[in-house]
Amino acid sequence: MLLTATLLISCPDQKGLIAQITSFLKDNNGNILSLDQYVEASDNRFFMRLRWDLQGFAIDRKEIGQSFHYLIASKCQMQFSLYFSDEKPKMAIFVSKYSHCLFDLLSRVQSGEWNVEVPVVVSNHEDLRTVAEIYGLDFKYFPITEATKLDQELKQMELLQDLKVDFVVLARYMQVLSNQFVMNFPCRLINIHHSFLPAFKGSKPYHSAYERGVKIIGATGHYVTADLDEGPIIEQDVTRVEQNDSIHDLVRKGQDLEKLVLARSVYYHLQRRILVHGNKVINFKS
Amino acid sequence: MLLTATLLISCPDQKGLIAQITSFLKDNNGNILSLDQYVEASDNRFFMRLRWDLQGFAIDRKEIGQSFHYLIASKCQMQFSLYFSDEKPKMAIFVSKYSHCLFDLLSRVQSGEWNVEVPVVVSNHEDLRTVAEIYGLDFKYFPITEATKLDQELKQMELLQDLKVDFVVLARYMQVLSNQFVMNFPCRLINIHHSFLPAFKGSKPYHSAYERGVKIIGATGHYVTADLDEGPIIEQDVTRVEQNDSIHDLVRKGQDLEKLVLARSVYYHLQRRILVHGNKVINFKS
Amino acid sequence: MLLTATLLISCPDQKGLIAQITSFLKDNNGNILSLDQYVEASDNRFFMRLRWDLQGFAIDRKEIGQSFHYLIASKCQMQFSLYFSDEKPKMAIFVSKYSHCLFDLLSRVQSGEWNVEVPVVVSNHEDLRTVAEIYGLDFKYFPITEATKLDQELKQMELLQDLKVDFVVLARYMQVLSNQFVMNFPCRLINIHHSFLPAFKGSKPYHSAYERGVKIIGATGHYVTADLDEGPIIEQDVTRVEQNDSIHDLVRKGQDLEKLVLARSVYYHLQRRILVHGNKVINFKS
Amino acid sequence: MLLTATLLISCPDQKGLIAQITSFLKDNNGNILSLDQYVEASDNRFFMRLRWDLQGFAIDRKEIGQSFHYLIASKCQMQFSLYFSDEKPKMAIFVSKYSHCLFDLLSRVQSGEWNVEVPVVVSNHEDLRTVAEIYGLDFKYFPITEATKLDQELKQMELLQDLKVDFVVLARYMQVLSNQFVMNFPCRLINIHHSFLPAFKGSKPYHSAYERGVKIIGATGHYVTADLDEGPIIEQDVTRVEQNDSIHDLVRKGQDLEKLVLARSVYYHLQRRILVHGNKVINFKS
Repeated sequence: MLLTATLLISCPDQKGLIAQITSFLKDNNGNILSLDQYVEASDNRFFMRLRWDLQGFAIDRKEIGQSFHYLIASKCQMQFSLYFSDEKPKMAIFVSKYSHCLFDLLSRVQSGEWNVEVPVVVSNHEDLRTVAEIYGLDFKYFPITEATKLDQELKQMELLQDLKVDFVVLARYMQVLSNQFVMNFPCRLINIHHSFLPAFKGSKPYHSAYERGVKIIGATGHYVTADLDEGPIIEQDVTRVEQNDSIHDLVRKGQDLEKLVLARSVYYHLQRRILVHGNKVINFKS
Repeated sequence: MLLTATLLISCPDQKGLIAQITSFLKDNNGNILSLDQYVEASDNRFFMRLRWDLQGFAIDRKEIGQSFHYLIASKCQMQFSLYFSDEKPKMAIFVSKYSHCLFDLLSRVQSGEWNVEVPVVVSNHEDLRTVAEIYGLDFKYFPITEATKLDQELKQMELLQDLKVDFVVLARYMQVLSNQFVMNFPCRLINIHHSFLPAFKGSKPYHSAYERGVKIIGATGHYVTADLDEGPIIEQDVTRVEQNDSIHDLVRKGQDLEKLVLARSVYYHLQRRILVHGNKVINFKS
Repeated sequence: MLLTATLLISCPDQKGLIAQITSFLKDNNGNILSLDQYVEASDNRFFMRLRWDLQGFAIDRKEIGQSFHYLIASKCQMQFSLYFSDEKPKMAIFVSKYSHCLFDLLSRVQSGEWNVEVPVVVSNHEDLRTVAEIYGLDFKYFPITEATKLDQELKQMELLQDLKVDFVVLARYMQVLSNQFVMNFPCRLINIHHSFLPAFKGSKPYHSAYERGVKIIGATGHYVTADLDEGPIIEQDVTRVEQNDSIHDLVRKGQDLEKLVLARSVYYHLQRRILVHGNKVINFKS
Repeated sequence: MLLTATLLISCPDQKGLIAQITSFLKDNNGNILSLDQYVEASDNRFFMRLRWDLQGFAIDRKEIGQSFHYLIASKCQMQFSLYFSDEKPKMAIFVSKYSHCLFDLLSRVQSGEWNVEVPVVVSNHEDLRTVAEIYGLDFKYFPITEATKLDQELKQMELLQDLKVDFVVLARYMQVLSNQFVMNFPCRLINIHHSFLPAFKGSKPYHSAYERGVKIIGATGHYVTADLDEGPIIEQDVTRVEQNDSIHDLVRKGQDLEKLVLARSVYYHLQRRILVHGNKVINFKS
């Protein structure tokens, strides 16, 4: 397996940036595997994703970050993060009663499609304990009432910290998380909303879509922020509604979309192909 | 060319409706070419589209409506409308400055793709006079200010009445029509909105879509009602946004969608494949 | 749960068919829930799907078939089949080494999304035994060499007969079945092919697609016939290829398509929304 | 209007390429507007598209090519081409009897959507003379029989040379061009084929698609090579077939696809967002 490094970069745009960054690679015998860059016109900000082969790279992997910071980043007001392909992130999954997204995520983990570890499945209901357990995973039940909510969230956060969880996937978790919880996981809390946002925010989007008579329904994978259903959108997809489709059919078609869009959102996150800028996601192609 | 009749039917659902209606055809030697039916569960209402070959049909075409009313419709609280394939409806087109939808509509008319007549192109600007005129069409200019608007609308309605216009297509007409105008054309006023409604109502939807960071944009063909952008949706379609797409790219991609969705909306209307029920469109497949 | 009956009908087209059939329902106090009909123009053949509420229906369910045969079908050279919504078909799943389709099918069965029983998972490899067993299913291993193939197939057919299997799903089963096997399951053997047929028949379609430089890849669910990859197509879907996609990416994207298209194909089969006519599938909308 | 330069580059992959190329820009005070690069793994070849602002660029535009050749390209076995945004290419359009693509292309030219000049419309039939002429364009009629074909093609080539035509668009031109003609326009001859290639090559693809019972139809924009329907694919798109769609409906839906896919193919060509490598097209995103 090829060992690679990935740099995600963000800084004010200026002439010569790409030359500087790629010269850093060249000067250290790095072979670029992919490079994608983007300039946000509205505020003249530069974004880049760079992936290179570590074999033969002149700088020891432990020193790359420091070296890059000293030689490049510090001179350009640059923020960057650095990842290595042999790191295996830890993903917690939050669910309630719907099983379709959980089944889909776990089968991808189990089959080796994704390089990720799932230390725990968390739920406010007992219903999906079996699903987690047939996959050999730890299942933690946190019943939630209005009165216990904040307290239970504190325990959930403690658990996630203990397990060194890197990011959390809300796989149709039917509780609105408190701002405090959300603040603890900036750009590390992925939710699937069962509509084509910004259409049909809030609860019961399939019912609203049916009522409105739309000809297409959608699903949206996004990072969670303090504003409900307003976070940066990672991925969306849609499917067509037929005249004879009942609300039950919309739910059935929609659940297939939810699985697909959530899986793609998690995949992009795992691949480090995403940067968040303001309330928007920059999606790198490669 | 086959001469056919099309019935669009709406009534409270009840047992035996289809048998009664199709027996009317059978008893009069009618050969059904297509039949599509739908029951709206929420209020138990039955809808049907029926098309048959007029050759050899026992009832004279002038008597069919009366006969059907007497034998069937009057007994079932049924509303119906009857169309013949050799009728050529009159469609007026309203435009402002964008030419893409106008070009697309006119090329379909000119090439014989649609069986429709365009007695006039109406605009609040002079910009597209040339486009109408190279297609040999009459172009009427109605400049509109806040002060003259209602007055000009009265003249427009007079013109449409004089020309016996059957329905009006707003092909990116950038004026909000008054309720009075709208009321005059119930289910006969087709608009193209350049977003995936109900997302991004109002003006500048491409800018709003860009700001929100959606991954897909859309267009919506709908009948106009008194509530702006809230009328029954006839057709929608979408296209994907790429990371590098500027607002200019969204407009470019979106205009291709607008052309397509508006054309399909007009086509379904011309084919009599639509019934409006409350604020929803029933789309018959055949 | 509503108890319903579904009729699938095929006969030479003739005037009055729908009136006759729906009058049979009306005369016996049947409330039609959905009706879809289609005439194949090339050979003037009529197809219909009819579903109605059994509550209050005048004929006992055991007598419906005989009664319909006597009163209608026998007079119109009609073939028909009759299904009841409380029947639970038995579906066998054949797999080899890829797990994605198996996971997807089993999670739909497990979650109750489909009304179907899976008496056995069959494979020519041991790899997916665990997957079947975590879902509590019987897994039968039939190793196959050129020499043992026909013999093993006989044993497979015996097993399927013993288990009263209604239909078989080839969920990326990497063996070509003999004609003898195929003949035993006419229209009851569903395969997923990992290309947009008829493009890229045969093996390694993702590689062929990559070589040809297509911009879109697809998957096809079809009934298996003696001609490999030539059977009646039940469902297809596609997804876009990006410039940077490697063959590995095509496989990854394609597997999501395979899951979706196979699941829809099985769903339509379970819903009795399919009739096979010659080498084509008639898909009823309702 | 921003004046920009675009470089399209192809060479054997090697370490440091991007650094070298972007340093050339940096050293001459060039502001990169977009950069997209791709490595073809099968033969380790590097491709790049680079666009930059000419304002303030240190090298005179007449010298850029020579300078780049001397400093970079000659050292890396690099092929490159250089374009400026104020150049207006000349596009000839070949048609036969179908008007939909011609209408669509001309309305894009007329409305100013594309920066291109159309010096002539060529046809082997007189049918579309009017369409060309209402747009004020020159229309040349070359009737073709088997006997006159090569002779007429010679005259067509002469005409295209006289008019300094840059590339030719076959907008449903129903003649197979000779190899000699094709050789004269390498990567400068764009055709629209009315199927999802490689499915349904040759004539009457809609009929073949109908016969095969596919659930989706497509259209393909490609460069023409000596092998009919085998040239490098620029763009493809698809649309869904409904059960009730006749061949006539497939043609109707397909023609909308043809317009869209041909327009996108021409747009990418005009934008210099394409490189041909072997029998594949490299599509740059930006």
